Amino acid sequence: MIPVVCIVGAKKTGKTTLMEKLIPELRKRGHRVGTVKHDVHDFSIDHEGKDTWRHRQAGSRTVVISSPGKVAVIKEVSQEMTLSEIVQRFFWEEDIVIAEGYKNSPFPKIEVLSREKNIVPLCGVKDHLIATYGGAPEKSEVPHFGYDSVESLARLIEDRYLKSRKRRFVSVVADGKNIPLNDFVETIVGNTVEGLLKSLKGWGSPMQVTITLLNREATDKE
Amino acid sequence: MIPVVCIVGAKKTGKTTLMEKLIPELRKRGHRVGTVKHDVHDFSIDHEGKDTWRHRQAGSRTVVISSPGKVAVIKEVSQEMTLSEIVQRFFWEEDIVIAEGYKNSPFPKIEVLSREKNIVPLCGVKDHLIATYGGAPEKSEVPHFGYDSVESLARLIEDRYLKSRKRRFVSVVADGKNIPLNDFVETIVGNTVEGLLKSLKGWGSPMQVTITLLNREATDKE
Repeated sequence: MIPVVCIVGAKKTGKTTLMEKLIPELRKRGHRVGTVKHDVHDFSIDHEGKDTWRHRQAGSRTVVISSPGKVAVIKEVSQEMTLSEIVQRFFWEEDIVIAEGYKNSPFPKIEVLSREKNIVPLCGVKDHLIATYGGAPEKSEVPHFGYDSVESLARLIEDRYLKSRKRRFVSVVADGKNIPLNDFVETIVGNTVEGLLKSLKGWGSPMQVTITLLNREATDKE
Repeated sequence: MIPVVCIVGAKKTGKTTLMEKLIPELRKRGHRVGTVKHDVHDFSIDHEGKDTWRHRQAGSRTVVISSPGKVAVIKEVSQEMTLSEIVQRFFWEEDIVIAEGYKNSPFPKIEVLSREKNIVPLCGVKDHLIATYGGAPEKSEVPHFGYDSVESLARLIEDRYLKSRKRRFVSVVADGKNIPLNDFVETIVGNTVEGLLKSLKGWGSPMQVTITLLNREATDKE
């Protein structure tokens, strides 16, 4: 799976502002960046009167609009997607995903602190906190980066998550949950599936293959 | 793969209007509908100043916003996604996808005709045309449905593509292209992959499993 780092913090501490600084810093270093924003409320994104809006008004659960250089999706989900599921489904041309929020996810986290809002981190090392940023905490289990140290923070992310160029060869997601594979299992699954499929017509030498299995009993409607 | 039907036709013949009538007609019959709009130009969907807009401005290639009931994705792509790839990636809780446009795709098509714009279908049976709708053509290779016959058109779609409740158990997408599997290959691949994975920790009895293989040589950057 693509590496994921979460920017967490109390409200109004400047999470989006840090995102805006971190994204170009990582791009400057040659990495393709994608982002996820966690919205606990509901968001609106579509424009009234547009064709996609008309599709949704008519009752389409998932609306996609696709053009040569861009694609957009607005999707109703019966339960909230996990960050893992989002990353697996929606990112395939990126080297890293930076998420805003998701403090309860199992991914590494950078917490934004602010002298006005809060100076004691909400997360600790047990929550996969790797650094704090912004207003200096009185004490901290992890390295702290001041407002002028975004470059050093980008370097930390690069060193930890982007130096090893080896991408995970096989990933398995079951109902949106990433199934951890050790190297041995990964090799067995990869080689077996590749061996099974490579004699199929139209196979060629694909860069990326996705195999989806649906539970045979799951054919009835909701 | 989920069944896909395309609504095609010359400009301003009323494709979106037909979509607006067809979607509720299919929903009334208990089917979960998703839609795709093909846009040959560029579209704008994000709102200036919002956090997702700020992420994109900063250089994020793919921006996702996720809330408990809804998720939205805005994604730059290095080449236009095919309709097959879109359906495989973005639809998993729908029974059918209705696409607006995509007259060159390999999916079944309904062409909208208009007495003012054009009365001779652009598509024929060789393009997988299954019906025409709207202004009556002088002659046609396929059944025609008038403006007041959306219910009959929905019934045709249901009879042809939604009657068999058996969902495809295994699907394989290589670089966005659906690899056709016959029943034998489908069973072999499904059973082998399931057999390999079911002893893994955290497996349970998932409804849907996605396995992604990345080409081992494809680890260098663009």
